[in-house]
Amino acid sequence: MMKTELARLIQRKTALTEEELASILKCFKLVKVNKHEHLLEQGEVADQLFFIQKGCLRLYYNTEEFGIVTRFMAFEHTFLTSLVSFIARDPSTEFIEAVEDSEVLSISHHDFLQLRESIPAWDKIYIYILEYGLTVITGRLSSILTQNATERYTSLLENNPELIQRLSNANLASYLNISPETLSRLKSRIFKQKK
Amino acid sequence: MMKTELARLIQRKTALTEEELASILKCFKLVKVNKHEHLLEQGEVADQLFFIQKGCLRLYYNTEEFGIVTRFMAFEHTFLTSLVSFIARDPSTEFIEAVEDSEVLSISHHDFLQLRESIPAWDKIYIYILEYGLTVITGRLSSILTQNATERYTSLLENNPELIQRLSNANLASYLNISPETLSRLKSRIFKQKK
Repeated sequence: MMKTELARLIQRKTALTEEELASILKCFKLVKVNKHEHLLEQGEVADQLFFIQKGCLRLYYNTEEFGIVTRFMAFEHTFLTSLVSFIARDPSTEFIEAVEDSEVLSISHHDFLQLRESIPAWDKIYIYILEYGLTVITGRLSSILTQNATERYTSLLENNPELIQRLSNANLASYLNISPETLSRLKSRIFKQKK
Repeated sequence: MMKTELARLIQRKTALTEEELASILKCFKLVKVNKHEHLLEQGEVADQLFFIQKGCLRLYYNTEEFGIVTRFMAFEHTFLTSLVSFIARDPSTEFIEAVEDSEVLSISHHDFLQLRESIPAWDKIYIYILEYGLTVITGRLSSILTQNATERYTSLLENNPELIQRLSNANLASYLNISPETLSRLKSRIFKQKK
């Protein structure tokens, strides 16, 4: 089981002994999920934090009025969970689904807390996870509050072209919080401008 | 200068010696701001973290297309800054303004980092600030993505009635991301239902 990328990320963020790093890595279990499989259902408490080794996960809401609404998408070498539920131990209001066949390294909330107590430097990793989560979610909220559909699409094209390449039109539209029809119009208009 | 509430919050979150607590409190300076005064302008790096002793601050964007859009409002005994800018040292895309005459305790980014190095327990406070920030911003994004105007207003009425009492109609509408006219209609409809 390869945990190289996770180990590398942890070592970049904090100074640890070999022993400490080994106890941390031991807490992460490899989980393979197929495309469309769920790692968390709405209403469950988020009991696992995932580090994506391969593939793509998304967080989404399923609402009566607006249907499926994507809150966040993450690819390789990113931590992901329904963080508010993971922190507060409240039932999650969202789902976690594999968008592609994926491999994640999963640590339980229990082990996560144990690490916070036994290895003080682990808090640096927790701070990294929180800072990262806060940065991406602020960007997302800011984009929804201040950008129109065209601006949202072009800024994604500039900052995160991988998302546009790897996601289906339906998923991409949901992520941009626009209809698939609007997305198709945008794509063909921007494609023409580029020619 | 009274720092009782700040001291109480810090002590609730982490175990500190009297000496450590004193060095922490020494880093916070009292700043008084008048209603409508700004503590941060768009384009500046957020160099201060505020703890609100009295009053109310808001974070807002000013966009060409949508005008003023409120991202967050905070009252007494809450930490607030443009966190992403404070973390990454990038220019802030938002403003911080006093909504009422306010008193804040302000710590500089420099002193904040110094505390992280000199008092390891300070990281527990930083984690508290990040967890809190992440929780409120996730709630905000979730509300914008999954609730219509009526649901947003009624859930605010249930969870945060203080906001409705203390904010002007214009500010409240901006916070709910609806027009002042829609807010007036909602208020009178819900008022009638309650009678």
